[in-house]
Amino acid sequence: MSLFSGLSAFPLTPTDQDGRLKPDTLAWHVERLVTAGVDSIGLLGSTGSYAYLTMEARMRTVRVAAEAIGGRVPLIVGVGALRTDEAAALARDAAEAGADGVLLAPMSYQKLTEDEVYQHFKAVAAAGRLPLCIYNNPGTTNFNFSRDLIARLSRLPHVEGVKMPLPVNGDFKGELAGLRSMTAQGFSIGYSGDWGAKNALQAGADAWFSVVAGLLPGPARQLARAAASGDPEEAAGIDRAFEPLWATFREFGSFRVMYALANLLGEEEIEPLRPVLPLAADGRRKVRSALSHLDDVMASPDKIAPRSKQ
Amino acid sequence: MSLFSGLSAFPLTPTDQDGRLKPDTLAWHVERLVTAGVDSIGLLGSTGSYAYLTMEARMRTVRVAAEAIGGRVPLIVGVGALRTDEAAALARDAAEAGADGVLLAPMSYQKLTEDEVYQHFKAVAAAGRLPLCIYNNPGTTNFNFSRDLIARLSRLPHVEGVKMPLPVNGDFKGELAGLRSMTAQGFSIGYSGDWGAKNALQAGADAWFSVVAGLLPGPARQLARAAASGDPEEAAGIDRAFEPLWATFREFGSFRVMYALANLLGEEEIEPLRPVLPLAADGRRKVRSALSHLDDVMASPDKIAPRSKQ
Repeated sequence: MSLFSGLSAFPLTPTDQDGRLKPDTLAWHVERLVTAGVDSIGLLGSTGSYAYLTMEARMRTVRVAAEAIGGRVPLIVGVGALRTDEAAALARDAAEAGADGVLLAPMSYQKLTEDEVYQHFKAVAAAGRLPLCIYNNPGTTNFNFSRDLIARLSRLPHVEGVKMPLPVNGDFKGELAGLRSMTAQGFSIGYSGDWGAKNALQAGADAWFSVVAGLLPGPARQLARAAASGDPEEAAGIDRAFEPLWATFREFGSFRVMYALANLLGEEEIEPLRPVLPLAADGRRKVRSALSHLDDVMASPDKIAPRSKQ
Repeated sequence: MSLFSGLSAFPLTPTDQDGRLKPDTLAWHVERLVTAGVDSIGLLGSTGSYAYLTMEARMRTVRVAAEAIGGRVPLIVGVGALRTDEAAALARDAAEAGADGVLLAPMSYQKLTEDEVYQHFKAVAAAGRLPLCIYNNPGTTNFNFSRDLIARLSRLPHVEGVKMPLPVNGDFKGELAGLRSMTAQGFSIGYSGDWGAKNALQAGADAWFSVVAGLLPGPARQLARAAASGDPEEAAGIDRAFEPLWATFREFGSFRVMYALANLLGEEEIEPLRPVLPLAADGRRKVRSALSHLDDVMASPDKIAPRSKQ
C-alpha cells in the first residue's frame, strides 16, 4: 500500500511566541495519533505551521517527532519553502532524521510558472530521495496546479502522490477519473478539506489528509473507515456529528480552530504565531459546542472531558 | 513633501545562487539611481527579492545600500515577513541602519483576517518608528485590503502612505477620491504596476513605486515628470516607447524581466533565486528589442550600449 493512502493526521507544532518548539507538547500530540492508529502522520503541514518556522525549528521538530513516534507509524514531513535550496535542504534533513516521506507545497511569492514548479519539485525530490507527495493547496501557496503539471510531476522519480484541495464543483468522481487517466500507474490521489473527506473517500480517493485527525484521530478514523468501507449511513451519521466543527473550520479557518481545540483537550495553552491570532471568546465557544456534538463518536481513546477552565 | 511621493525606484538585490549578497553589484545598482535623481529608493521590495532572502542577508543589504547612498536619496526598506516578530526585527534594524522609511507587505500563508493584519501593522510600525508605507499587492501577498482597513491603518502612528496595485477597472480618479475621503489627512497614495503609472500620475496619485526605475531611472523619471506636470502628449509618447517593455512585464512578470535587463545593462550576470528561473532566449530577445524602443528616451545617464555578448 502506498505511503500516501488512508488517514494521514496533521498535528499542530506547539511553540512559544518566539517560534521555539515545545518538545514535550509535540510528543503528547504525536502519541495520541500513534495510539489511535492513524495510517500516517503529516508533520509540519500547513496545520503544523511549517511556513512560519525557521529552518532550525523545523529540523528540530522532525527529530523530536521521529523519536516520539519511534517507527510505529509512517512519518511524512512538510518541506515546502520559498526557495528551492531551502526545500531541498529540508528534504535531505527529513530523510536523515528517519522520515518515511515528504510533502512539498509550491510556496510562492512571485507567481511561479509551471516550468519553475516542475524544476523545483524535481530538485527537491532528488535531494530527499523519499516518496514525495505534491501539496496542492492554492489557498495558501497561491499556485494553481494544472492537471497536465500533476501528470508530468507524477512521472518524476520519487513523486508518488498528490494532496488535492476539494474540487470547486464537488465532482470527486470526475476529478479522480481525470487524474487517474493522466498520472503514472500507482500514483496516489488524496484530499484535504475535512468537510469533504466523506465524499472524497466514498468516491474512491486513496487518502484523507486530515487536519482534524491531528487532534481527534479516533472520530476521524471512524469517519474514514465508514466512508471507505461503503457504509453510507454510518458515514453520514459521523459526518453529521462533525458538521458543527466543519462549520467553524469554514468560518475561522481550520488552523485557528485547531489551536482552540488543542486548548480544550490538552494541558498546556498554545497559540499560533503572530500575525495569526487565537480565536476570540465567541469562536472558542463555538468550537467547544462543536466538540460536544462529537461526544457520541468520541469512543476511547478520544473521549476526553474538556477542561473545566475553558 | 511626504517621503512616499514622486518616483520611488525599486532595485534588484543581486545575490549568488545561495542568496548571498553581491555588495559591489548592489552599489552599482544604487549609484545609478542616485545619479538619475529619483525621489526615493525602495530597497528590498518585491523586485528586491525580500521574500526570498534570509534575515541576515536582508540586514546586510540595508547596510550596504545605506552606505552606498550616503544620505543622498531617501531610503525606504521592505520589511515584510510571514511572522510579526521577524517583520518587527527587520523594521528596527532598518531604523538602526539609517533608513528613512519602511514598506510593509502583509505576506501571508494562512489567509489573514483584517484584525490580524491591523495588529501586525501596528506592531511593526511601533517597532520601526519610521514612516511606514502599506504595501498592497494581493498578487504576491495573497491578502486583499479593504478600503476600510487602509483607512484604519492610515490613523496608526507612523503609517503615512499606501502603495496600491492598479485598479482592476482602471478608474484611478474614482479610487483616489474614495481613498482620500477615508484616509487620514496627508496620507500618501501611490501606485505600482509600471504600465499604469502614467494614468495614475495624471489622475493625481502621489507616487509611482516603479520597478523599471530600478534599472532605467532616467526614462522613468521623464515619464513621471511629463505625466505629473500635465504634458499629456509628451507623457503619451514616452509611455508608447515603454510599451514593448510593459508587454514583457505582463507576459513574463516584471521580476524576471528585470534580471534580463540587468544582464543587458550591467557588467555582471545575475539570476533570480530558484525556483524563479531566468528568462529563456525568446524572452531575453523580447526584452532586448523592447530596450531598443527606448533609445530615443534614453538620454544620459541611461544611454548605455547593451553588451554585445547578449
